[in-house]
Amino acid sequence: MKGKVSQRGLEMPASPIRRLAGAARAAERRGITVYKLNIGQPDVPTPPQAFEALRDIDRKVLEYSPSEGLESLRVKLAEYYGRCGLDIRPDEIIVTAGGSEAVLFAFMACLDPGDEIIVPEPAYANYMAFAISAGAHIVPVTTTIETGFRLPDVSEFERLITPRTKGILICNPNNPTGYIYTRAELEAIADVAARHGLFLFSDEVYREFCYSDEPFVSVMSLDGVRENAVLIDSVSKRYNECGIRIGALVSRDPEVRANVMKFCQARLSPPLLGQIVAEASVDTPEEYMRNVYGEYLARRDFLIERLNRIPGCHSPMPMGAFYTIASLPVDDADEFCRWCLEEFSYRGATVFMAPASGFYSDRRLGRNQVRIAYVHEIPYLAAALDTLEAALHEYGS
Amino acid sequence: MKGKVSQRGLEMPASPIRRLAGAARAAERRGITVYKLNIGQPDVPTPPQAFEALRDIDRKVLEYSPSEGLESLRVKLAEYYGRCGLDIRPDEIIVTAGGSEAVLFAFMACLDPGDEIIVPEPAYANYMAFAISAGAHIVPVTTTIETGFRLPDVSEFERLITPRTKGILICNPNNPTGYIYTRAELEAIADVAARHGLFLFSDEVYREFCYSDEPFVSVMSLDGVRENAVLIDSVSKRYNECGIRIGALVSRDPEVRANVMKFCQARLSPPLLGQIVAEASVDTPEEYMRNVYGEYLARRDFLIERLNRIPGCHSPMPMGAFYTIASLPVDDADEFCRWCLEEFSYRGATVFMAPASGFYSDRRLGRNQVRIAYVHEIPYLAAALDTLEAALHEYGS
Repeated sequence: MKGKVSQRGLEMPASPIRRLAGAARAAERRGITVYKLNIGQPDVPTPPQAFEALRDIDRKVLEYSPSEGLESLRVKLAEYYGRCGLDIRPDEIIVTAGGSEAVLFAFMACLDPGDEIIVPEPAYANYMAFAISAGAHIVPVTTTIETGFRLPDVSEFERLITPRTKGILICNPNNPTGYIYTRAELEAIADVAARHGLFLFSDEVYREFCYSDEPFVSVMSLDGVRENAVLIDSVSKRYNECGIRIGALVSRDPEVRANVMKFCQARLSPPLLGQIVAEASVDTPEEYMRNVYGEYLARRDFLIERLNRIPGCHSPMPMGAFYTIASLPVDDADEFCRWCLEEFSYRGATVFMAPASGFYSDRRLGRNQVRIAYVHEIPYLAAALDTLEAALHEYGS
Repeated sequence: MKGKVSQRGLEMPASPIRRLAGAARAAERRGITVYKLNIGQPDVPTPPQAFEALRDIDRKVLEYSPSEGLESLRVKLAEYYGRCGLDIRPDEIIVTAGGSEAVLFAFMACLDPGDEIIVPEPAYANYMAFAISAGAHIVPVTTTIETGFRLPDVSEFERLITPRTKGILICNPNNPTGYIYTRAELEAIADVAARHGLFLFSDEVYREFCYSDEPFVSVMSLDGVRENAVLIDSVSKRYNECGIRIGALVSRDPEVRANVMKFCQARLSPPLLGQIVAEASVDTPEEYMRNVYGEYLARRDFLIERLNRIPGCHSPMPMGAFYTIASLPVDDADEFCRWCLEEFSYRGATVFMAPASGFYSDRRLGRNQVRIAYVHEIPYLAAALDTLEAALHEYGS
């Protein structure tokens, strides 16, 4: 008699992107070009300093690093935060296997089974998976495309607070919407967190990608939540090295760090080679970041202008990150995205987008929306959008 | 008002090794040489092929790898298992961030909160941390130094089975005892697992380090548990690259793999650079392994012979891995280990051992025992044991 797998795993939703990935591979096997707007894997080269650091490794043994990460990397990250205007000490930084592990350990260290966290949605789909891992529940605050995904009044948050509420989680700049929280919004959330003794988890991995004139506000700079704020960070998007799996969890509360460290110690250490690469990357000359920034800005402007010219399509102007949520003139974007991959082609090509349903916990929301990642060059985006326009034309006729 | 950290984290025991690590650093700051017998960080060089693979990386972007790991690495691992006499296909292998993540994901995918797993103890301390993460309970089957840590009769396992029992976890060759399960013991456990529909988790990361004449038996080779067996593996110890964080979870049950993959997808991908290094390492010439094996064998023989010559000390002959559990002529090994680091020195040196209390869930067990890792050269071990003998002499007088 074989063993029975966990209910926890069975309940974990399979992402719609994952479900479509097989269809995309099948299309490619049929010889169709698939324009991939579905994931946040940038095409931008990793900085040369990263590769130099790898070539320069002069060690005899690739041994465990400390569970909290290499001291030298934590010092560099603290300096980087200093350049961002944040006073963060190296000992307040815990290095993790990507931002993913930082979210998981933040939940494990701060939430018990049955606890609740309030999360504005649409939201990064994997937060749900980490919440299920920790036995916690995500309570959504819905934001809408009609208002450009700005936060509802803070009273909407307060209305959802129960005795089991332990925190609020935001992603800023936001994946998938590209929204950036205003100082007023952040201060209002921080005030709620401080008054109710809630953690304020903030995933700021897209910090460098802010295209508005307003300065970016980190939760780590807010008064009143110095101990409540838990920063989730990653070098993946900043230096285009998603594969090295280096992120960080930052907290000024020693009790939070002590609890997080128990989970860190259990898994022994974060990846050593990634840490070596990340440390070199933090020293990447500003010119690299400026070029990357300029490229994304141009892509965003191109994408949104072109998208909004397709009849029935609408996307607000994303302020940051490299995603947008767009509404399409279809009833069911899951079905439309599947159709694009399985039944459609235009000049030998089709388009792979992420149905937005995966970013809402209420599956009735965002039914006609998709997330588009602008992680490719403008000619690629142009061809992809021509294909999308042709697909919508054929689908609707 | 600040947030309250999780009870789960507070309940997670801090390992006695971690508690002593500060005392060890303080001793070093006082100029005392600390012989480190406390952890399994081998001094053996990583194979040159690993470093060559790093220097030869020819990529522009260090991008995400597939969530299940690079296909090329999984093919190499399947070939390796084939050389070990195990028929395992690449698609039955899921690459993880070290054996640690493999254990965590095995628990998450197979156990629900409140579920129980039976684990012979003394046991690797971090299993407890992963069980707490998953909300599961470890139910110990005690093995004793008097019998050389051999398994009690299988009826002892059956006696502990409740409606919540979901699995049995073994570590073979064993950390911390060095015990290797006989075919008869494994078949008896497998029979229990099959009859009761339990998972049989087997952590075999020390597979290459078997010093007895009996061939090593993997759970993956046992009839009757083809679907129940979940193999936990790692390249850390095999190729002396603990820091790259590459392990694997192997299962022949597609339902188990599908559940595990959900947790893999949530964390996006295992470390890319580690995978590149691991893939090169699997091709390490046999001579490397033979030399490492011979070195450990000599160290083991030296260590155990010398240990058993210290009055009042006793260690069974470990059959595998690179640890042993020894009993000392003290009442409280936690206190003795602390005393060694804080109050004792002999010829400018002291010794750092892991109190065995951390390897038992019942803290009354193993009170006079320590775990010693023989991950250093013989002259180092000799000096460490001279120091231990002097310490015991002074402590007892």
